[in-house]
Amino acid sequence: MAAEKVLRMNPADHEISYANNSFYQKEVLMKVRPIVEEAITYMLKKIGVPTCMKVVDMGCASGPNTFQAISHVIDTVHGLCEQQGLKLPEFEVLLNDLPENDFNSVFKSIPDFYKQNGDLVQERSFIGGVAGSFYHRLFPSTSLHFVHSSNGLHWLSKLPVRLENNKGNICMARSSPPNIFKAYANQFWEDFTNFLSSRSKEIVRQGCMLLTFMVRRNPNPSHEHHCLELLAKSLLDLVAQGIVKEADVDSFNLPIYPPCKEEVVDIVEKEGSFEIKQLQVFEMDIDPLSRDEKVRNKEFYMKMGNNIANTFGAGLEPILCGHFGDAILDELFRKFASHEADDPNRSMHQIVNLVVSLIKK
Amino acid sequence: MAAEKVLRMNPADHEISYANNSFYQKEVLMKVRPIVEEAITYMLKKIGVPTCMKVVDMGCASGPNTFQAISHVIDTVHGLCEQQGLKLPEFEVLLNDLPENDFNSVFKSIPDFYKQNGDLVQERSFIGGVAGSFYHRLFPSTSLHFVHSSNGLHWLSKLPVRLENNKGNICMARSSPPNIFKAYANQFWEDFTNFLSSRSKEIVRQGCMLLTFMVRRNPNPSHEHHCLELLAKSLLDLVAQGIVKEADVDSFNLPIYPPCKEEVVDIVEKEGSFEIKQLQVFEMDIDPLSRDEKVRNKEFYMKMGNNIANTFGAGLEPILCGHFGDAILDELFRKFASHEADDPNRSMHQIVNLVVSLIKK
Repeated sequence: MAAEKVLRMNPADHEISYANNSFYQKEVLMKVRPIVEEAITYMLKKIGVPTCMKVVDMGCASGPNTFQAISHVIDTVHGLCEQQGLKLPEFEVLLNDLPENDFNSVFKSIPDFYKQNGDLVQERSFIGGVAGSFYHRLFPSTSLHFVHSSNGLHWLSKLPVRLENNKGNICMARSSPPNIFKAYANQFWEDFTNFLSSRSKEIVRQGCMLLTFMVRRNPNPSHEHHCLELLAKSLLDLVAQGIVKEADVDSFNLPIYPPCKEEVVDIVEKEGSFEIKQLQVFEMDIDPLSRDEKVRNKEFYMKMGNNIANTFGAGLEPILCGHFGDAILDELFRKFASHEADDPNRSMHQIVNLVVSLIKK
Repeated sequence: MAAEKVLRMNPADHEISYANNSFYQKEVLMKVRPIVEEAITYMLKKIGVPTCMKVVDMGCASGPNTFQAISHVIDTVHGLCEQQGLKLPEFEVLLNDLPENDFNSVFKSIPDFYKQNGDLVQERSFIGGVAGSFYHRLFPSTSLHFVHSSNGLHWLSKLPVRLENNKGNICMARSSPPNIFKAYANQFWEDFTNFLSSRSKEIVRQGCMLLTFMVRRNPNPSHEHHCLELLAKSLLDLVAQGIVKEADVDSFNLPIYPPCKEEVVDIVEKEGSFEIKQLQVFEMDIDPLSRDEKVRNKEFYMKMGNNIANTFGAGLEPILCGHFGDAILDELFRKFASHEADDPNRSMHQIVNLVVSLIKK
């Protein structure tokens, strides 16, 4: 099945919806706010304030985070304009995700967004949706000023080829054979290059792009712990119980690839359309809700495990369901939560992120 | 409940969906094609071919008709450019409807639209959705070149006030008291004025707008037969059977108003932003599928009645359901189909349309 058909977050009315299980993604947004502000400040200094600033959020999903990101962009521009006595621009905001995304839920949230942001924003910002893969062209030439994408670009456009020998794993993992690393890296190279060259045609000169996505710590992927290994482990538990066939696990791989920082820099430089203004790697607890708890007892870890499982569930259930059927999902995520709770390795409870701020040459 | 919440077509996966019951709307589109072509030809002569032509379909609903309208616009521009050896523009196409519309289904149809229209269209046209009432601003200032709206503007933004004495009717009908005519006309005046002044700000100078909607034949509405009277009759049948309460029918009115041609001209002139280039009134069979049948026996009329009931059902079921509940719908539309089949008055099986081509001054 084409990636477009299976890569989507759970819809907003689903029990474990992305809308209600995206605190981690919200924290990532909070973390990169200063870099967004810097990027916009730099851009407006270079190109001036356009009459209408066209802003895109790529991989918007169906939850509230896209509106948080957008309102932060609008606020930042407003702040700068007020500071410098400049006329506020209008904003054309386009929210993008794959055609299977729950756009109906996104659109139903727009009236609330306006209510929360007041008359000035309502009068001057115009919001729409654009469905399609960001690995292709989606917008007219030289039309965008600011492109934002959070938590999307580690999703590949499709599964790499020749993953047959990745047995017992569900994506690139420490125990994967070397050809698996190569296959995933090649697909990421192709996809990220396509992403950059598509945006390159769409973004105005000196326009700006702010990308945040999952990366790994180590250039060598066989040194990397990854929390999805615990999901693979949970699937193997179900194999041991006779609930899932071993062959089904062996033939299942996720189109997810966390590159290392060096790969990202390399691809941006080789593609050639963008200059890197800022690049940072940072770690983030998958369950930010439980981070501040004082008592770290069994109950605490179970709650954390559940929250982590729900965060992944909102994104992974559709694709897992497409391969294994929905009957196993509850049990699978119960096991996943329990493995997360039991795991003493703190790095298993964190995701490494890269944020990069790019300027169109 | 706000009009935004109840005014929507049945979604695409509904048994009587708009997508599968919009042959009438498709016929209307076919009928106005020459006027669309004339309008675009005139506009491009005046403003030249823009690098990116921004096209909007307002009230796109969830069916295939919006794509037919859009591909006709694109074809027309392509034809003109080829004829005159001009560079083809890119197209930014935005499909608009209320936030409750089934945009997910619209977006899922985009890949097929591209497949049917070939690589040239896929490479050069970028499609998005914008959710919101067209009686407000929806797009940035001076950004649109061609605005299209078919079968939308007879839907009012809300119910007129003081309809309490419109007993036994469900919208303006021959037997309505004079204050009802006045109340509906006032609401249309306000809504259509808002529509024009909102678009006036959004459309470029000499940009073009092509509107088709239901009107009535006679300036005096008390002389007008209307097929919705048969829907009111069907509701009263259910009252007689004790299935529906009389008070529920008395308190129910549809926010639909067919103006007469003279009112439309008057409002356009008073609002003042647009010049009328073309205006035509034409009648159209509600059931174009059965129009060419040779044998007009009982079976023929029952089929026609069913088709007419389904055409109205796709648009009216959500609003009827909101007031009367869904238990009565099957029986109501069975009766409606049967009244349509029995009615000898040909004008009951037709809708009068107005198409007006406007140029932004």
